[in-house]
Amino acid sequence: MKHQNFLDKPLFAWIITGLIIFSVICFSLETLPDLSENSKRLLRYSEIAVVILFTLEYLFRLFTAPDKRKFVFSFYGLVDLLAILPFYLTFAVDLRTLRLMRLLRLLRLLKLARYNSAIHRFGRAIYIAKEELIIFTCASMILIYLGAVGIYYFEHTAQPDVFRSIFDSLWWAVATLTTVGYGDIYPITLGGRLFTFGMLMVGLGLVAVPTGIVASALSAIRRQQESVEGFESKIEDDGSR
Amino acid sequence: MKHQNFLDKPLFAWIITGLIIFSVICFSLETLPDLSENSKRLLRYSEIAVVILFTLEYLFRLFTAPDKRKFVFSFYGLVDLLAILPFYLTFAVDLRTLRLMRLLRLLRLLKLARYNSAIHRFGRAIYIAKEELIIFTCASMILIYLGAVGIYYFEHTAQPDVFRSIFDSLWWAVATLTTVGYGDIYPITLGGRLFTFGMLMVGLGLVAVPTGIVASALSAIRRQQESVEGFESKIEDDGSR
Amino acid sequence: MKHQNFLDKPLFAWIITGLIIFSVICFSLETLPDLSENSKRLLRYSEIAVVILFTLEYLFRLFTAPDKRKFVFSFYGLVDLLAILPFYLTFAVDLRTLRLMRLLRLLRLLKLARYNSAIHRFGRAIYIAKEELIIFTCASMILIYLGAVGIYYFEHTAQPDVFRSIFDSLWWAVATLTTVGYGDIYPITLGGRLFTFGMLMVGLGLVAVPTGIVASALSAIRRQQESVEGFESKIEDDGSR
Amino acid sequence: MKHQNFLDKPLFAWIITGLIIFSVICFSLETLPDLSENSKRLLRYSEIAVVILFTLEYLFRLFTAPDKRKFVFSFYGLVDLLAILPFYLTFAVDLRTLRLMRLLRLLRLLKLARYNSAIHRFGRAIYIAKEELIIFTCASMILIYLGAVGIYYFEHTAQPDVFRSIFDSLWWAVATLTTVGYGDIYPITLGGRLFTFGMLMVGLGLVAVPTGIVASALSAIRRQQESVEGFESKIEDDGSR
Repeated sequence: MKHQNFLDKPLFAWIITGLIIFSVICFSLETLPDLSENSKRLLRYSEIAVVILFTLEYLFRLFTAPDKRKFVFSFYGLVDLLAILPFYLTFAVDLRTLRLMRLLRLLRLLKLARYNSAIHRFGRAIYIAKEELIIFTCASMILIYLGAVGIYYFEHTAQPDVFRSIFDSLWWAVATLTTVGYGDIYPITLGGRLFTFGMLMVGLGLVAVPTGIVASALSAIRRQQESVEGFESKIEDDGSR
Repeated sequence: MKHQNFLDKPLFAWIITGLIIFSVICFSLETLPDLSENSKRLLRYSEIAVVILFTLEYLFRLFTAPDKRKFVFSFYGLVDLLAILPFYLTFAVDLRTLRLMRLLRLLRLLKLARYNSAIHRFGRAIYIAKEELIIFTCASMILIYLGAVGIYYFEHTAQPDVFRSIFDSLWWAVATLTTVGYGDIYPITLGGRLFTFGMLMVGLGLVAVPTGIVASALSAIRRQQESVEGFESKIEDDGSR
Repeated sequence: MKHQNFLDKPLFAWIITGLIIFSVICFSLETLPDLSENSKRLLRYSEIAVVILFTLEYLFRLFTAPDKRKFVFSFYGLVDLLAILPFYLTFAVDLRTLRLMRLLRLLRLLKLARYNSAIHRFGRAIYIAKEELIIFTCASMILIYLGAVGIYYFEHTAQPDVFRSIFDSLWWAVATLTTVGYGDIYPITLGGRLFTFGMLMVGLGLVAVPTGIVASALSAIRRQQESVEGFESKIEDDGSR
Repeated sequence: MKHQNFLDKPLFAWIITGLIIFSVICFSLETLPDLSENSKRLLRYSEIAVVILFTLEYLFRLFTAPDKRKFVFSFYGLVDLLAILPFYLTFAVDLRTLRLMRLLRLLRLLKLARYNSAIHRFGRAIYIAKEELIIFTCASMILIYLGAVGIYYFEHTAQPDVFRSIFDSLWWAVATLTTVGYGDIYPITLGGRLFTFGMLMVGLGLVAVPTGIVASALSAIRRQQESVEGFESKIEDDGSR
């Protein structure tokens, strides 16, 4: 877009993406319960290496930026800083907050945003459909709540240890209406089962409709872009055989 | 819309919405099994405070209404009354019906309807697609029933304690065709599993199609409105880059 | 449509529908395990009453039909006959086949087809989209099979009693790709879990796409009909406010 | 298409398809744990018969091909070779790799590709929507990962044996966001459940949207083809009644 130096080349983007994924994998490996001292040391060195590389990237970007102040406070400048800051702060804080600091290392995933221009299209689809999305989210929440209250009154007497309060019922309603259905909590009375059936008949659609809305908004945007870019002709050519 | 007094201002709407959510949370907290006396008293006071505020709102709306009789019997007038009535009725009834009365307090959620004009669009989508929705609901029910009968004949002999009657099988069919799958009841014979596979192949679509219909009706309505309001141009401008 | 006698009136249709539902409920009640002698007798009498009424309907339709031979061999004539035949055949057969005969009583549900003209639209949607449906059904089956083979090789050694053969794995693949997930059989090895993740990423779409195809075919048909019947104007009027 | 000899006749295609399915069933039966010696011998003979028939088909195709070299290295030529090669290689390899060889017999399923021209349309739909599919796959993976990290921090202390590391949490995130929900691993703390709810609200759409995109791309392609082939008129005729 702007000045095309080597930081904007695809190869460099792929290297940074690779480093981010490598860093995320290291972060996951650290949580393994039975880790030998050697592995721990290796993971520590990997972390330091990644931070050094990201720091070099940050400094290079800073020095090549035409307006240094603007870069530091830009979205990507802040993201690049957030990717390395947690590491340096771990020297300053006590052991307690160290664990939370480690979690902040995942902010590096935000760096991926720089290389992905197509997210805008998805953002536009959300923006176009935002009114329906808000309504459906609210309606889903009300339905989940009413479902929880209903099942509580049907099942509390039969299973007082399972449906202890409306909060347990809410967990059931979430797991049921999203059709996850772990099976840790489910109705056993006839009334509770009939209620579940009715709730699912009404609720399945409510929870799933937003997906359909976003998908149709996305394809409307694509259609629009295609007709502008003359993409349509390509499909027609293929379609006529 | 009509006379713009302070009751129609967004701030007031947000306060009322907040009160409703607060009241609903209190209602949920009351069902917690091990509640101290202090907490119970606090919840009771919160309930009284909410009712007083809703009563004041109702009286204010009543006195500022140009036609008092019309307001009382209007949809929103009745909803506002229903939001406070259960509380006052608890003094008149015996302890038995008290529990059901408590449930009626949830009618306050209906007050949310006042502030949500976009529900109309969803209502129109349902209206446009109502024929398909009825057919698919009927077809789903017949399929669920046939699925229940089928699995009963396949599994009853192998698991007489699990698939005791067609009513247990119906519960299985509901949990399976909606893909919730709690795991409390499932086929173990080869015949039952093959039958489940066939039923899912036919049935998944049947249960999920209404969602697609409502979603496509909703986006058809939005397209229509956009072309009228000249919204389309906005998308096109964005899309051309 | 044809000669409008009382058999074609909506009231009569509702009575027949009610009888069918009543008969189906009786059929379900008979499978309850601990049924008293009294209840059994009551269910037997209900069955006889339903059969008498359906026989009267059949005979009336037969005698008022302009072409008796044509009626008997028409689709609806055969359906009406199939609804009562199983009952009469139970006197002729031995006890062994009696149970299967009882199942045939569900053929009465076919009688519902007479009163539902909108099924045609769904049939057309299936017809239009039949090519994609066949491909996706075949592709789903192949994917389910490959998923079963894959998980068998990953999990057989770790769980030889759960993933005993490819047939058990097939059951797992069906329950997983349809997202039912009973939880009776699932992978525990790292390889098996990674394989499941990959399979779900590819397979979720494959199994769910036919639903989207049928839904979009249905709304295409509705759009077509609306533009012919001038239904579009109604939406536009609504949409312009 | 090209020279229409008997190998391109529909009957022959059906025979080959039948042989492939038969061979796949045999492959599955071999994995049954308690197989008698007789059955094993029968399955062995079936395998030999299938290989002989496929070898004859390959040789016939090879000899009737106008350009032998081109046929051998064409896609279908290689597929046909791969379908029989694993059998002949089992004589050359030791027992260790024999098991993997058996798995290669499933390559015969690739032979089905020859008779299915409509796969192209699906391929085009994927191609048109490939940008969105890539974004959504990446976004789904990031969401699954963040979900796994989140649940690990909420549940690790409460269930150290279930959520042992982020890799166990990843398995939970996959099973939950795809709504499979086996029930082998689920949150029990309030924080973990609230987190699950939030994650499902955001994530359900993300995982399901690609399906909607592919379905709408497929129907766009069909519409295009129909308007070219004058298929539209057929629908209109039906729709006008």
